[in-house]
Amino acid sequence: MAKDLKKQPRPKAETPKGFRDYFGADVTERKQMLDRITEIYHRHGFEPLETSAVETVEALGKFLPDVDRPNAGVFAWQEAEVPGGGAGDWLALRYDLTAPLARVAAQFRNDLPSPYRRYAMGPVWRNEKPGPGRFRQFYQCDADTVGTASVAADAEICAMLSAALEHAGIPCGDYLIRINNRKVLNGILEAMGVTEGAPADDVLRTIDKFDKVGEQGVRQLLTTGRKDDSGAVIEGVGLRPEQADPVIAFLTSKGGNNAETLANLRAAVGASAIGAEGVEELAQISDMLAAMGVGEDRAVIDPSIVRGLGYYTGPVFEAELTFEILDEKGRKRQFGSVAGGGRYDGLVERFTGQKVPATGISIGVDRLLAALRAKGLMGGEVQGPVVVTVMDRDRMSDYQAMAAELRAAGIRAEVYLGNPKNFGNQLKYADKRQSPVAIIQGADEAARGVVQVKDLILGARIAAEASHDEWKSQPAQTEVRRADLIAEVRRILG
Amino acid sequence: MAKDLKKQPRPKAETPKGFRDYFGADVTERKQMLDRITEIYHRHGFEPLETSAVETVEALGKFLPDVDRPNAGVFAWQEAEVPGGGAGDWLALRYDLTAPLARVAAQFRNDLPSPYRRYAMGPVWRNEKPGPGRFRQFYQCDADTVGTASVAADAEICAMLSAALEHAGIPCGDYLIRINNRKVLNGILEAMGVTEGAPADDVLRTIDKFDKVGEQGVRQLLTTGRKDDSGAVIEGVGLRPEQADPVIAFLTSKGGNNAETLANLRAAVGASAIGAEGVEELAQISDMLAAMGVGEDRAVIDPSIVRGLGYYTGPVFEAELTFEILDEKGRKRQFGSVAGGGRYDGLVERFTGQKVPATGISIGVDRLLAALRAKGLMGGEVQGPVVVTVMDRDRMSDYQAMAAELRAAGIRAEVYLGNPKNFGNQLKYADKRQSPVAIIQGADEAARGVVQVKDLILGARIAAEASHDEWKSQPAQTEVRRADLIAEVRRILG
Repeated sequence: MAKDLKKQPRPKAETPKGFRDYFGADVTERKQMLDRITEIYHRHGFEPLETSAVETVEALGKFLPDVDRPNAGVFAWQEAEVPGGGAGDWLALRYDLTAPLARVAAQFRNDLPSPYRRYAMGPVWRNEKPGPGRFRQFYQCDADTVGTASVAADAEICAMLSAALEHAGIPCGDYLIRINNRKVLNGILEAMGVTEGAPADDVLRTIDKFDKVGEQGVRQLLTTGRKDDSGAVIEGVGLRPEQADPVIAFLTSKGGNNAETLANLRAAVGASAIGAEGVEELAQISDMLAAMGVGEDRAVIDPSIVRGLGYYTGPVFEAELTFEILDEKGRKRQFGSVAGGGRYDGLVERFTGQKVPATGISIGVDRLLAALRAKGLMGGEVQGPVVVTVMDRDRMSDYQAMAAELRAAGIRAEVYLGNPKNFGNQLKYADKRQSPVAIIQGADEAARGVVQVKDLILGARIAAEASHDEWKSQPAQTEVRRADLIAEVRRILG
Repeated sequence: MAKDLKKQPRPKAETPKGFRDYFGADVTERKQMLDRITEIYHRHGFEPLETSAVETVEALGKFLPDVDRPNAGVFAWQEAEVPGGGAGDWLALRYDLTAPLARVAAQFRNDLPSPYRRYAMGPVWRNEKPGPGRFRQFYQCDADTVGTASVAADAEICAMLSAALEHAGIPCGDYLIRINNRKVLNGILEAMGVTEGAPADDVLRTIDKFDKVGEQGVRQLLTTGRKDDSGAVIEGVGLRPEQADPVIAFLTSKGGNNAETLANLRAAVGASAIGAEGVEELAQISDMLAAMGVGEDRAVIDPSIVRGLGYYTGPVFEAELTFEILDEKGRKRQFGSVAGGGRYDGLVERFTGQKVPATGISIGVDRLLAALRAKGLMGGEVQGPVVVTVMDRDRMSDYQAMAAELRAAGIRAEVYLGNPKNFGNQLKYADKRQSPVAIIQGADEAARGVVQVKDLILGARIAAEASHDEWKSQPAQTEVRRADLIAEVRRILG
């Protein structure tokens, strides 16, 4: 192999474009956060599920219609030819945790409890053009209940999301779960006399612009069109002016509390049966949340939430962080959405032909972690190991015995394993490792049965504050008997 | 989309061939085991690293020579064409955790501490023909020290592996770490007058057969060949009879303790300088392990260990579980190897041209977990959630309030969310969920301010043991005041 390698240029040591590596605290802090969330999911009766990272393109399904390019949006490859059996399967990396859940719910439907509550956390992959802050592998953390049409499941998911966010460290008041219902939107369309399909999609897209263009803007967009600030003309949907009324009623239906909002929504859907059903579901969810102790300061009915509408069939949820952080330019900005979900019916049906109602949420792991860091709730001081330095290369066993003793006492410790010749490099290494303490024992100390214990945190403070003379007196370094090593390190670590 | 779907047959709901899904305890037990191992790695000063699952085929390297089929052994695919820039990169799923470490060590060499101690755990992928017990995605759990040639690093890795196995639950005496050194083997080859290359490989392959064919068999295989039990003739390596002597001395060098083994090895390598260096390294490792409190009942010099020799350049390690288990046919068998590793130099050099010495181990996660289960150390009783049953569909909020109260008291609980019509189905569900307790409250109980608390564990025991009359008296079901619900559930859970 060595010979072969010489013939070719050296490979580039690079993380593939759009991917990243996580070091040290990046890994442990995410794990800590997910462990906290897992505790809550577990306590709500949810069971873990870890599917394979790889699925058949057929099972992923979303991409099936595009037969010529089965790998659009996913990382896909074709299996080798089956001997005597023609072309191999197309396989792909999962792009979310819901498609594999649908496959599992269909495949194991006779073995799983019904309803099946499951949580899943792990990486997913998207074959997208990488960009700043846009990655091709990222973590998701989902919880879903499969096999029940009861809105009690939706209410439970919202209550659990609230508990999970708080247990992860986001206090009540710093987040808000907003709840809407696709059926209410359908009722609004019905009240407008707009059938589903292209015009309905146009209406929904317009609703999504309410935040930006306001009531007048929405009226214009639904009817004859609108000129935006730059003077560009945006074509209207072409509805009659009075057809816009239910939309406006809907968009302005948010009241001071759930009861008011629900009353406004009941008026907005008018005679639509599906609309009334949607409002009734929201009312039930509101009651159930109250019964579970989740007040409107935690989860609230909010008609402005419009999520991936082709996918959802009933209640939809979105958790937003409501505190402001400073961005890299020092400007205040809202942190925004960290989780979302809702009710969906079609996923398992693809496999079995039977409708299997399901509801769930997905937490954006990286975003929530970033939020916890921005709030100073995670990622504080990282403490490295105690470093046992090496004064005499032939006394490694003695140094290793010290490290072993420290570990046996529950203290993180390591022996310096680089070239020990330059002692300054050893202290530089300890500094890079964020070590709180360095242990030093030369031949002289060994003969006298003592060790030097250097308090690196105090040492750094003295180096920053003290005069040269004070610094030279090394108050941060103490000589103790070898037998007292553990006690002295414990004293310094506090 | 619904229209498109009708045109094509339903997708199959199947885990792709060679992959698997993990449910419930499979996930939590593995996590628990890895958390225990992580604690030990952390205490030894190792830092977590999580690389992307995807690497460039170029960086993975091992597969580069096979230019026509860059995906042999790995799952690989080609990126889309770069606009105006020709063919896209070949990407692949990592096949182990060492190749990505080498890439990271080269890429971040100016930022990482040196030596760099890191651990990594996660799935790896192999594009192999699936077979019984052979999977194409499995977990590894590695720890490596990069950037030091000191055998102190090798000794530390062995001591850490010992601590990790014990912390995971394998007691001293149920495992043994065997240590050998590639340099000793090189010394043996030198003493035999066999240069490296094809004949050396043949000798090493023969050494590996010692367990099966014994001293006489090895002598035959090294010289003129051997007839095996079936009468088939195996060709010999073609050495002169006296050339086999150092190999035999080596293979029979294991003494009653490390000191004896080392003395035998010193004799076996004769005048070979590299052999003597290898023996000296083993002697140092032996001393260091003793200093760290790792006796020969935990880690021992054993010349019979021969691991992936093209890869390793110095000490090699293998951890074997020494207890017997019964296989599916009730036969006793040894559990065998659960971890292995050693020193390697060439991996980072591929990228930078500079030799970077490194050493490490990899734990076979699935095998170790299977061992813990076989020993009854994991996977005992799984307790499901308390199930609050639903007697009145319109009182869901009351049931949800009970579940919320239970959870607030730290008790895992859920409301039954299936169709509540058939109460028997609710109890069957609780049974499937391995619930310890079911809560029942009909309209009558609600009016009286009480709940029924059913001890399902006691109930199951009574059903198995008691007479029909005893069973009918339902001693496992207690009526308590609603306010006493938590206290009663706590009493039953113990």
